[in-house]
Amino acid sequence: MKVHWPTVAIVGVGLIGGSVGLALNSRRLAKRIIGVGRSAASLAEAKRRGAVTETTTTLAEGVADADLVVVAATVGTIGPLLEAVDLAVRPGTLITDAGSTKGSIVAAWEKRRRWRSGRFVGAHPIAGSHKRGPSAADAALFGNRITVVTPVAATPAKDVQEVADFWKALGSTVVVMPPREHDRILAATSHAPHLLAAAIAAATPDDARAFTAGGWRDTTRIAAGDPELWADILLDNAPRIARALGRIASTTEKMLHALETNDRRTLVALLKRAKEHRDAVGS
Amino acid sequence: MKVHWPTVAIVGVGLIGGSVGLALNSRRLAKRIIGVGRSAASLAEAKRRGAVTETTTTLAEGVADADLVVVAATVGTIGPLLEAVDLAVRPGTLITDAGSTKGSIVAAWEKRRRWRSGRFVGAHPIAGSHKRGPSAADAALFGNRITVVTPVAATPAKDVQEVADFWKALGSTVVVMPPREHDRILAATSHAPHLLAAAIAAATPDDARAFTAGGWRDTTRIAAGDPELWADILLDNAPRIARALGRIASTTEKMLHALETNDRRTLVALLKRAKEHRDAVGS
Repeated sequence: MKVHWPTVAIVGVGLIGGSVGLALNSRRLAKRIIGVGRSAASLAEAKRRGAVTETTTTLAEGVADADLVVVAATVGTIGPLLEAVDLAVRPGTLITDAGSTKGSIVAAWEKRRRWRSGRFVGAHPIAGSHKRGPSAADAALFGNRITVVTPVAATPAKDVQEVADFWKALGSTVVVMPPREHDRILAATSHAPHLLAAAIAAATPDDARAFTAGGWRDTTRIAAGDPELWADILLDNAPRIARALGRIASTTEKMLHALETNDRRTLVALLKRAKEHRDAVGS
Repeated sequence: MKVHWPTVAIVGVGLIGGSVGLALNSRRLAKRIIGVGRSAASLAEAKRRGAVTETTTTLAEGVADADLVVVAATVGTIGPLLEAVDLAVRPGTLITDAGSTKGSIVAAWEKRRRWRSGRFVGAHPIAGSHKRGPSAADAALFGNRITVVTPVAATPAKDVQEVADFWKALGSTVVVMPPREHDRILAATSHAPHLLAAAIAAATPDDARAFTAGGWRDTTRIAAGDPELWADILLDNAPRIARALGRIASTTEKMLHALETNDRRTLVALLKRAKEHRDAVGS
């Protein structure tokens, strides 16, 4: 198992990119960690925190010497960044990403696979926060978390293994599945809940918001996430989110019907199923 | 302002009742705090924690000497308990409750107002937890929280004042409003979000639940609440919950339509409104 990459370039030094750098650094997995970004302030903060050893705002320069490139940008920008990275890396350079959707990102790469210089395998570390930026980065962010690695049929097994080894080396448990399967699952566990949390927050009447307690605060917490970033994710996975929302709406309808017909037995059964699912996941 | 009640009886020494006792005790607001309950173990735990000074499983005995009775039981049992309390108290004893719905509880009391022995004014401290029992009780539970006090037109101003003084003395900010107004607001801030959190948890496919992170966990946390207790709350406030769900469904439909028509501008606007509402409330 290869667990050491002499030079790693991280494109985007926010929460995820910064945490990749801190994890690499604290586990001594890389000698050079090159932070690539647009914001000089974020790059400086990432370097100050020890997430990267050097920085640049020029992508081609930052990735030219890399053995491994991690694109840790927002979903809407990963596609164009992968194109730019591929034009600048040495042939055979391993590339991965950390985007919250995988289908369209991987498909865009695969469409031109035969002309590629790098070896890309998509990934999604399911570890995040509503916080952003390198100041929120954490070397332990990936510990005890799943990273989904999403090869296609054409991806060489060796590339899958190397990218899986990378994410494992940062502390995560790796699960390999096709991109569309990832997107179906994340629609249910992240995207549809996000949309509903936002709908609850947006629909709560102005005169009611003073009367919220822990329940409303927990339920709507992710609605504080960045609207532009989440719009990209939601738009990219729309059909699967619609199906996940359909399943939730169907369960909501059953609960509402039980309320309206005073059917306590059905209501309790549905609430018990919810509690079992929730208890199984842990706090 | 009267802030001292020599003898207080607390019917139900769970999270809320236990916290009332701890707050009374730590603020030296009562001499005797009598815990009334069905479970000897809970009563013993409440006494061990200093939430009550004496205990009994006999309601009539526990409330006979009280200057103030707090019924801190589940919504489904408050009605019958208020009847039993009223039969056992000295004439003129102040009574309040801590139920999560107010309309039907207050209406049942008011229906027989002219024959009442005690002076009841309903209340709802909007402070809770998905934890339960006297071991989760906290003297600071009501600090910086709102307690809604819900008199009707027939309630004497003096009674409203005394019950408001009581909840203020425990640390809460008191807001006075009619019971149905309370139920309309809580449907939006607590009951409908609870039902949706449960629907999300119940509808998440089995093979997806391993792939949850902080977002799903926050959004569904309240779904771990007690199904029987929540069934009582939801059934008691069904029409107003249906209306609150209708507003949320309408917002969800707008978001879904924006997703399906790739209307980024509308989607971002809706997510921004959600974020503004969420940010205004605080973590």
